[in-house]
Amino acid sequence: MSRTLRVDGDSAIVTLDQTRLPFEERWVRLTDARQCHDAIRVMTVRGAPLIGAVGAFGLAFSAREDASADSIERAFNGLAAARPTAVNLVWALARVRAAVLAVAPVERAAVAWAECCRICDEDEACNAAIGAEGARLIRALPVASTGRPLSILTHCNAGRIATVAHGTALAPIYHVHREGVPIHVWVDETRPRNQGASLTAWELARSGVPHTVIADNAGGFLMMQGEVDAVITGCDRVAANGDVANKIGTYLKALAAHDNGIPFWVACPVSTIDPHTPSGAAIPIEERSAEEVSHVVGQLESGELGRMRVVPEGSVCANPAFDITPARLVSALVTERGVIPASAAGLRAIGLDDGTWREGGHV
Amino acid sequence: MSRTLRVDGDSAIVTLDQTRLPFEERWVRLTDARQCHDAIRVMTVRGAPLIGAVGAFGLAFSAREDASADSIERAFNGLAAARPTAVNLVWALARVRAAVLAVAPVERAAVAWAECCRICDEDEACNAAIGAEGARLIRALPVASTGRPLSILTHCNAGRIATVAHGTALAPIYHVHREGVPIHVWVDETRPRNQGASLTAWELARSGVPHTVIADNAGGFLMMQGEVDAVITGCDRVAANGDVANKIGTYLKALAAHDNGIPFWVACPVSTIDPHTPSGAAIPIEERSAEEVSHVVGQLESGELGRMRVVPEGSVCANPAFDITPARLVSALVTERGVIPASAAGLRAIGLDDGTWREGGHV
Repeated sequence: MSRTLRVDGDSAIVTLDQTRLPFEERWVRLTDARQCHDAIRVMTVRGAPLIGAVGAFGLAFSAREDASADSIERAFNGLAAARPTAVNLVWALARVRAAVLAVAPVERAAVAWAECCRICDEDEACNAAIGAEGARLIRALPVASTGRPLSILTHCNAGRIATVAHGTALAPIYHVHREGVPIHVWVDETRPRNQGASLTAWELARSGVPHTVIADNAGGFLMMQGEVDAVITGCDRVAANGDVANKIGTYLKALAAHDNGIPFWVACPVSTIDPHTPSGAAIPIEERSAEEVSHVVGQLESGELGRMRVVPEGSVCANPAFDITPARLVSALVTERGVIPASAAGLRAIGLDDGTWREGGHV
Repeated sequence: MSRTLRVDGDSAIVTLDQTRLPFEERWVRLTDARQCHDAIRVMTVRGAPLIGAVGAFGLAFSAREDASADSIERAFNGLAAARPTAVNLVWALARVRAAVLAVAPVERAAVAWAECCRICDEDEACNAAIGAEGARLIRALPVASTGRPLSILTHCNAGRIATVAHGTALAPIYHVHREGVPIHVWVDETRPRNQGASLTAWELARSGVPHTVIADNAGGFLMMQGEVDAVITGCDRVAANGDVANKIGTYLKALAAHDNGIPFWVACPVSTIDPHTPSGAAIPIEERSAEEVSHVVGQLESGELGRMRVVPEGSVCANPAFDITPARLVSALVTERGVIPASAAGLRAIGLDDGTWREGGHV
């Protein structure tokens, strides 16, 4: 499976312009920190793991121009501010910063680049492991033994293109699909930016995974009708108590899953767990542009991409981009180190305790 | 406040083309049963009370052409099939049918027309009463005594233009707003047809009621943040046990209100209560066109109305138009006969028991 982020020689990275999907597959080349920052901010790239990797390369580009500690710090702060909610961005930046500050300035550019490549390799391996862990959960669903196709609901896009490779929430789905398990995915369109309709549907179609796009409003009804066997989403940050920040609307699906006795799993690379955030209430929630609500982007009847106003001019719009799903509604966190409860005890079980890591370079 | 449905002489009705709102205010003239049927089916008119009234006039137009019992029956069945979920349509049709079949064929056209006018007058009075009843609930919210603006969340459009006049869910909001109570409305955009963004926002703006349009995904987060004091929605059918069918997504907001200890009120004209439907599970849920999900209608940058594809061509869409909110999640039904619990006992308290009415001509 090809990567969403590729290194081009030793001076550029190439990634998909996700603002053009699903109607146009355009790859963009990024060669400096400013381009990386802007690609994250305007969501040319999005998805917590992918923005971590792109941010890391931004710091590596910056180290190539000026490897002084001051410059590294400035670049770190600028890139970290591109988007506030996902912790992976700061996590990846901190990894690169720690690596470069450990060596002499003359070595820093090369060390930064190598660290970025390592982050990408690890992301691919991490997501493959999440796929295998989540696949065990899916195969253990009672309905799996009946042979009827499993139906999994997902929100937003935590797929291959939200990561360097494989995806997080979609990794288990790709895993069982490759094994031949009959599976169908309910894809929440995920207003206001429609990452489900435009990105998840696009990548599932490319992999031949049967799926159906629905309005975000429909999931609760489908669960009540017995049409959903499990819900799996990604996440942008997990707090020390197991609360999960993810795309706005996730909380509503978690409530509905709970009300209908359906498992609600969160695919959660260890890098998205932030032991320094005590609970969901402490996670900053990004408020994005009102225009994402007042306007919709899509394909005009001419075939061109365009945008269209859907709210009258006199009306104000609000656009919180993430919400908090309380740990009590999360059936399990699916990490590359195993499936754990969404709780402090669960995090301790995979080596996270006292706000520090037993391994790895977490902030 | 002007009516959404007006009689034009004694041979036509005039109503707003709601498929053009909020960008164009076009009134359409309907003069026969087929036009009334089509206006309901393609949602030129929508909203349970309004489609009841338009359907009734359809039967009156038909009685004018052929007043035989056979023809009345055929017209009844054709009009009733235009939309399956709301019970008001069948309720209004049955009222007109009963009135005309009680008199000689020669009198039927005039009797039908008079009955339709009565339905409209009663709808206006009914909604004014719902407004007054709901206003008492709003004024009794603990926050109302603090003087800070109240924030009420609503889903879809159960406003003035969903009815002949005043609205159902919005009637209490207009009522307290006229009294000078500071109030703000969170408007769910209500995909896939965006009745919140296009209709509720439009009519609130016209009445000068402060409001903010949000993606359907946002309401749960706003409730968790303490930004919502109550939720009020309309309904398309209430079952004998108090279960409520309303626009898809209502159930998710009811779950979130319950989870956050926020009142969830359903504005419920007695005509939407169906004592013959034992519970929500027995309410037929309309599946509408997949194109409502795959495409969005709005205003192009040229100013023209247009539509745009938001789902890739290879992906299937599903579009259930309503969902069921279990009675346990409904804090109260706000009817023109008073505020009641969403339960069989509540319905009995306003004269509905044993599947029959104490007054009125319910099916």
